[in-house]
Amino acid sequence: MSTETPGSLSTLDIRVYYEDTDAAGVVFYANYLKFFERGRTEWLRRLGVNQSELAAQHQRMFVVKRAQTHYMKPARFDDLLTIHSRITRLGRASIEFAQIATAQGETLCESTVEIVCVDTNSFRPAGLPPFLRTLLQKVQN
Amino acid sequence: MSTETPGSLSTLDIRVYYEDTDAAGVVFYANYLKFFERGRTEWLRRLGVNQSELAAQHQRMFVVKRAQTHYMKPARFDDLLTIHSRITRLGRASIEFAQIATAQGETLCESTVEIVCVDTNSFRPAGLPPFLRTLLQKVQN
Amino acid sequence: MSTETPGSLSTLDIRVYYEDTDAAGVVFYANYLKFFERGRTEWLRRLGVNQSELAAQHQRMFVVKRAQTHYMKPARFDDLLTIHSRITRLGRASIEFAQIATAQGETLCESTVEIVCVDTNSFRPAGLPPFLRTLLQKVQN
Amino acid sequence: MSTETPGSLSTLDIRVYYEDTDAAGVVFYANYLKFFERGRTEWLRRLGVNQSELAAQHQRMFVVKRAQTHYMKPARFDDLLTIHSRITRLGRASIEFAQIATAQGETLCESTVEIVCVDTNSFRPAGLPPFLRTLLQKVQN
Repeated sequence: MSTETPGSLSTLDIRVYYEDTDAAGVVFYANYLKFFERGRTEWLRRLGVNQSELAAQHQRMFVVKRAQTHYMKPARFDDLLTIHSRITRLGRASIEFAQIATAQGETLCESTVEIVCVDTNSFRPAGLPPFLRTLLQKVQN
Repeated sequence: MSTETPGSLSTLDIRVYYEDTDAAGVVFYANYLKFFERGRTEWLRRLGVNQSELAAQHQRMFVVKRAQTHYMKPARFDDLLTIHSRITRLGRASIEFAQIATAQGETLCESTVEIVCVDTNSFRPAGLPPFLRTLLQKVQN
Repeated sequence: MSTETPGSLSTLDIRVYYEDTDAAGVVFYANYLKFFERGRTEWLRRLGVNQSELAAQHQRMFVVKRAQTHYMKPARFDDLLTIHSRITRLGRASIEFAQIATAQGETLCESTVEIVCVDTNSFRPAGLPPFLRTLLQKVQN
Repeated sequence: MSTETPGSLSTLDIRVYYEDTDAAGVVFYANYLKFFERGRTEWLRRLGVNQSELAAQHQRMFVVKRAQTHYMKPARFDDLLTIHSRITRLGRASIEFAQIATAQGETLCESTVEIVCVDTNSFRPAGLPPFLRTLLQKVQN
């Protein structure tokens, strides 16, 4: 990990399909939250974190607690978006991400998303497993 | 049940929202399968069948095996659709539905959907619980 | 309008179907934004505002500029949610809504959503049509 | 085109995210139609057909007329699906696709999808533009 910059872990390209658009001809606002969730999932995967294993072996999963989303410009059918994701805060049982969706260098949408690590059975907040905390701290710095 | 006709159990009104439409200005084709699933869920609920209880008490759930869908006319934002659902075949572990979506008396889409009753753990076909079979046979006739 | 309270205009019941849930067994976080959009659409409809007519006759539509969403408790398959919507701020070309999703008296999710009125061709902010401004001011008070 | 086999044009990898799954822990049945639509869009793109240009320059778009879908095995969160798409029939104003979704060599879902080429204004069937017909005939053989 030491030689990789966080930036190298942080982007995901997403094509806009018909399913993502609405009758106004643009991407429906809720769908950016799908794109950002895909971005976080791939961000974790590239760190070597498999969420299925995290649930099976550590009884931990992530749920979204807050999402503050700002819509700046519309995306349209066939646009190629890039989702940029980075950690902005790391708590005992929480992770805050700053995520943006860009197209051709312009920012279309940005969101600050607070994720909470919960126990898979109780859905109550539970500390990040030590291996994951160590991993995230390296990336954050 | 004996005094109710199947028809009285079979319709569900669904408003078309932005989320349902795409950039062509019409309801995205996959979304009719969502509407038909809502129609089947309400059809079962009106029969007194709660799918959460069916899973918890009988370890049974329904999965779709086939859906043959014919799209005839487009629906648009703000349209009020009616989903009509009726059983056309009842097997040991399967139910076939004929479902149509209408608006102002015109048929927009129709689908023949074969549902299989499966064990919630194995996802393998499992006979309909006797109480449910009895209930469905009454409605079918 | 004068004898109706804003509260009487503000609620919409929404059943949670399979399409709304995810593999964690709960409503997927992006889907609350769909529910809130349905809530705003019905809120406008009950005021007598038809968005299709607004576009055709006044060249105006609404786009979401910001959504600040707080997820408190999960909703599950078959839950019956109530969406409560009210105006908290009325600008020249914008409307701010406070919206919450409740089930059995408990708040599951709340969002502050800023909507901008735009020209249907340019997607640029454009003042609310006078008839609509008058209508919204009555409701706000 | 002459040296490329249709097979080389026909696959698209799709990762299963939370948004695609439902409370049964598997991909929701309607979502395969989204995956197949993505597959057809990329299939056309690799042929050099841009649907936005097709609408702007030729006033043509594609709508789905029929989809006959058979669900064989469930897909789960994090699975990597491959969508295989090929033309099985080419009409004056229609294209029939056979599409399958596989994971690790097993077929999970297959669909026969009939697409109709329509005029963007009238939504009525309209012959495929000659350049597109020529292109599709080459691929079909």
